[in-house]
Amino acid sequence: MKAIRLSSPGGLDLLKLTEMEAPSRPRTGEILVRLHASSLNFHDYLVAIGKIKTEDGRIPLSDGAGVIEAVGDGVSDFAIGDHVVSCFFPKWQDGEPTTSGFSTTPGDGIDGYAREKVLTPANWFTLAPKNYSHCEAATLTTAGLTAWRALVADGGLKAGDSVLTLGSGGVSVFALQFAKAMGATVIATSKSDEKLERLKALGADHVINYKQHENWGEVVRKITGGRGVDHVIEVGGPGTLPQSITACRIGGHIALIGVLTGVAGTVPTAMFMGRHQKLQGLVVGSRQQQMEMVRAIEATKFQPVVDRVYPLRDLAGAFQREEQGVHVGKICIEI
Amino acid sequence: MKAIRLSSPGGLDLLKLTEMEAPSRPRTGEILVRLHASSLNFHDYLVAIGKIKTEDGRIPLSDGAGVIEAVGDGVSDFAIGDHVVSCFFPKWQDGEPTTSGFSTTPGDGIDGYAREKVLTPANWFTLAPKNYSHCEAATLTTAGLTAWRALVADGGLKAGDSVLTLGSGGVSVFALQFAKAMGATVIATSKSDEKLERLKALGADHVINYKQHENWGEVVRKITGGRGVDHVIEVGGPGTLPQSITACRIGGHIALIGVLTGVAGTVPTAMFMGRHQKLQGLVVGSRQQQMEMVRAIEATKFQPVVDRVYPLRDLAGAFQREEQGVHVGKICIEI
Amino acid sequence: MKAIRLSSPGGLDLLKLTEMEAPSRPRTGEILVRLHASSLNFHDYLVAIGKIKTEDGRIPLSDGAGVIEAVGDGVSDFAIGDHVVSCFFPKWQDGEPTTSGFSTTPGDGIDGYAREKVLTPANWFTLAPKNYSHCEAATLTTAGLTAWRALVADGGLKAGDSVLTLGSGGVSVFALQFAKAMGATVIATSKSDEKLERLKALGADHVINYKQHENWGEVVRKITGGRGVDHVIEVGGPGTLPQSITACRIGGHIALIGVLTGVAGTVPTAMFMGRHQKLQGLVVGSRQQQMEMVRAIEATKFQPVVDRVYPLRDLAGAFQREEQGVHVGKICIEI
Amino acid sequence: MKAIRLSSPGGLDLLKLTEMEAPSRPRTGEILVRLHASSLNFHDYLVAIGKIKTEDGRIPLSDGAGVIEAVGDGVSDFAIGDHVVSCFFPKWQDGEPTTSGFSTTPGDGIDGYAREKVLTPANWFTLAPKNYSHCEAATLTTAGLTAWRALVADGGLKAGDSVLTLGSGGVSVFALQFAKAMGATVIATSKSDEKLERLKALGADHVINYKQHENWGEVVRKITGGRGVDHVIEVGGPGTLPQSITACRIGGHIALIGVLTGVAGTVPTAMFMGRHQKLQGLVVGSRQQQMEMVRAIEATKFQPVVDRVYPLRDLAGAFQREEQGVHVGKICIEI
Repeated sequence: MKAIRLSSPGGLDLLKLTEMEAPSRPRTGEILVRLHASSLNFHDYLVAIGKIKTEDGRIPLSDGAGVIEAVGDGVSDFAIGDHVVSCFFPKWQDGEPTTSGFSTTPGDGIDGYAREKVLTPANWFTLAPKNYSHCEAATLTTAGLTAWRALVADGGLKAGDSVLTLGSGGVSVFALQFAKAMGATVIATSKSDEKLERLKALGADHVINYKQHENWGEVVRKITGGRGVDHVIEVGGPGTLPQSITACRIGGHIALIGVLTGVAGTVPTAMFMGRHQKLQGLVVGSRQQQMEMVRAIEATKFQPVVDRVYPLRDLAGAFQREEQGVHVGKICIEI
Repeated sequence: MKAIRLSSPGGLDLLKLTEMEAPSRPRTGEILVRLHASSLNFHDYLVAIGKIKTEDGRIPLSDGAGVIEAVGDGVSDFAIGDHVVSCFFPKWQDGEPTTSGFSTTPGDGIDGYAREKVLTPANWFTLAPKNYSHCEAATLTTAGLTAWRALVADGGLKAGDSVLTLGSGGVSVFALQFAKAMGATVIATSKSDEKLERLKALGADHVINYKQHENWGEVVRKITGGRGVDHVIEVGGPGTLPQSITACRIGGHIALIGVLTGVAGTVPTAMFMGRHQKLQGLVVGSRQQQMEMVRAIEATKFQPVVDRVYPLRDLAGAFQREEQGVHVGKICIEI
Repeated sequence: MKAIRLSSPGGLDLLKLTEMEAPSRPRTGEILVRLHASSLNFHDYLVAIGKIKTEDGRIPLSDGAGVIEAVGDGVSDFAIGDHVVSCFFPKWQDGEPTTSGFSTTPGDGIDGYAREKVLTPANWFTLAPKNYSHCEAATLTTAGLTAWRALVADGGLKAGDSVLTLGSGGVSVFALQFAKAMGATVIATSKSDEKLERLKALGADHVINYKQHENWGEVVRKITGGRGVDHVIEVGGPGTLPQSITACRIGGHIALIGVLTGVAGTVPTAMFMGRHQKLQGLVVGSRQQQMEMVRAIEATKFQPVVDRVYPLRDLAGAFQREEQGVHVGKICIEI
Repeated sequence: MKAIRLSSPGGLDLLKLTEMEAPSRPRTGEILVRLHASSLNFHDYLVAIGKIKTEDGRIPLSDGAGVIEAVGDGVSDFAIGDHVVSCFFPKWQDGEPTTSGFSTTPGDGIDGYAREKVLTPANWFTLAPKNYSHCEAATLTTAGLTAWRALVADGGLKAGDSVLTLGSGGVSVFALQFAKAMGATVIATSKSDEKLERLKALGADHVINYKQHENWGEVVRKITGGRGVDHVIEVGGPGTLPQSITACRIGGHIALIGVLTGVAGTVPTAMFMGRHQKLQGLVVGSRQQQMEMVRAIEATKFQPVVDRVYPLRDLAGAFQREEQGVHVGKICIEI
């Protein structure tokens, strides 16, 4: 069977299909999955260009979706033919997070899903939403679950809450969609009017071109009648956090997800404190949260935004699009 | 101005309009409200027929909606012309409940809103949803807030959750609507196929005629693939609670609201315990919860179900309809 | 090695030591535990007398404590020589409960710890508190964890809260001790003045002889200045629940644990509802909660109350004491 | 009666007693309090030296404790002779915070308690703990409630949790005491070995001299076996936050309270995010939380640490001690 393995030192031009041995039959508690799709995340990009170092020969890509071809003894949750999607932290089944870092994450600490088949413990995957294609299902592992956990598991989102999303990346678009599916109001930002139109069409109640409004935090306050939003999906990191604090209400919740603008920076701690705000750092979520998200998607029936689909053999081309930052929603890979 | 005052011993035939002095101008912290609508609840009915004893001459009806005609000094939340709706527990502003009983409830322990005008502390009312008529707004004080608190404040409802509602009374229909507005799945019951059609049209995903299924709890389990529902809006009380426990999932939440089938009865405590369920007793909610509900309604834009509207002078006729139990949604009063 | 196996139909007189093959060496993820102690619970008693039916030859006793003799590959949490204690629901590692019934519980659905050694997946045990003997550690699996979960995980106990405990069984005494260790006030009941003295010595702030006070719920209200307690550890079940509802404050929490007085009974649902109370059914807890409890015990350094210790060969004698109901705290078994 | 009024521009040398008219009798809902004590906080200091600007003639000091001399109509919570203590945010009675800033805080936006008597709405005070002197009670308004809210209301502290406190100021010492009263483990830091001895005597399980350990965050990790603490009481602000993030466990809670090291600074956001930590900004708490804290103090019976007591006429001297930063616990004022 075919797979992509990373060389070291790496680079996008080295992402080539190679042959590897097909996996054997599942043992007790295992499943054999024929993978049909994956999708790209900023974390996969950092791995692919070698900025995050991994073992030589690592198979990249954290997201994986496909069909179960065989099940081992003792597997009761799945049957042959089930459509399934992979977990970002396969060892984090439920409860509070207990590990940091990516040593257990497919496509980083362990082999990922840029391959045709995988033999894996059954509880490293969950069922995919019934109404999703494999490409759509693959967007859930990282981007979908991050947005779901931030808003629902951590944020306790309820109808009538207001949510601020930054940009048009995968997490932000999912956050917009989950928020609208649960009756919240969404304010979305982008530097491109064209993308803002797209976000409006997806349900954003208000949009802000942050190139035209350096103090976009104040614009958000004005839109909310001076109150500020209940939740900020902060994917920018330290470069945008000060404006996010301005935009957030007294007692509000900022989900700190991003490293797009760096790994450290100046934060107005006194303003944050004086407004009794909560900053919740997070990286994706647990398998239990993924199952709850899948249930929510089946009930609300929205489709994820797929920017463009590439074949696995053109993984390099897909990452080049990610690099350009012109996409809206998720760049997908067909296997 | 006109009002209705209860006589003792009472009865529906004694509900007559009387003249009373119009209220004076608001003092510090007060507002003057021209009431335009109210709506009926089972609690109002028990008061009206004298089954709940109140002071002689009591003005009935807990729900009140109207327009602000004058504001006293120090009132910053409201302005003349604002559409407002009354609070069931005017002294319970925020936080956990601290009183039981109805000594502070308009239409029971204190005078209610079966009158043309009321002079009141400003924080005994909240703004009404912008998209609601007075009649629609009046349905929120008791029925709307009970459903909102049960599902959202107490239940932490999220998209993908499943909700079981019993019958087609005001609370159950509101619960159905809030649940659908937040992406949940709803199973509704009734003894009438006609009403079940109505509930389906309002968004119910599954319906059960409980006259045809004595063990409707088991039917709910079957519909949910054996799992049981996440939330039960238990308006029946002891007569229906055993089936509700059967219908509810392991670790699930039953909101105990009703006294329709009595004030005490046999409960299968061991089954309830063995399934790690939570039974949360509740009576309406706080003013803060009401403000959050109004925000949710403005964001999700659904209209409440108004069964029929009666003029205040025909309050007796309105209660007769309540007595017959043929209504779906709320019986309203125009003042 | 030696073990006790249940015959069917059973009875205390049939609890005899038998010989069985010693377990082999641990495979990947497994540990070999030399068991040194167990303790008795009402659930074990029902199994032993055959009131709860189990497979023929079942090894009884859910509680097990001992020393690790060997560890398999991939076990990182434990080392040879570690003192460990068993989990009541070995498959419930973390998060919300997902199963009811006892099909995965040692000593019921699977073999328990009335034996000298056990080979088991490593995550079916946790570390024991450093300051505990094996007998003391064995009391934690069922009684200790039930009390901990009820008060801390479910109840969110904080200093200054008031807790009502019923009787002097294992769960109630543990609840008293955890409550005192966290700065709460405890009201304890018993039908024996001698036991009440014992409970006072253990820290109970107030005691009530419920034989002398049929309406002991009212006595609790009086002790709390009319407010009622924040938490009730309701081990009695339907026979005591009405008094517990009376004793509990508005918005208070009743942990429903017991079946001592039956599996169903009359509950004053309207009073419960009118007081906005919460009834939380529970059966023991998760492995994660057990680890948190062990940490709490090491920090607060209290010892559990061991009523009497029996050798494994006199398991029948131990159960006879359980049957008499004269014990305070836990009856232990030395293996 | 006597009071101190601030002049503008201010300074400690201008803190002089002046005469003012004694308050009249309480109207409906009001109480008359004879103040006997206050205590100093960093916020009071910033007001006193004019760094926080207030209205000319403002009476300083947020903390106030004394005895009720008269009660108006409709006051049911208090009686003449009751010992009471003031609230930092008198308008924040319960629920989530709704205001930032100090416009409603006595001693800043409105007159404080550097005076002999005050006529005030009854719900601007709570009962004081029965076992506290007036000086001790006065320490609760700001420092006590900040520590209580951070650990208990926001942090959900439970026995066995680990808590890191910074320095020996009022909030940190209260946090140490509440943590120990609830069965937690405490690691305390200071730059003075003498103060560390004092903190040990108060119950600190581990102490660190941060002058000798620049990377004290790593020292905390080592003490906790690499796990990190559950809660950090971060009174330093941006200057200490990076070390606090290092010291805190995966999924842990950092209460951001302080501005001692500035109002903004560099934060390692990626490390914070990668560890799934929560940063909760806070300023004191609600009246409801204060009542819960008082109940906790009465149940656990610990006394606050009073550094030194000054008479009101020597308020300047008291602030000079605050300025020197040599105190442990609270500097109190007798009126």
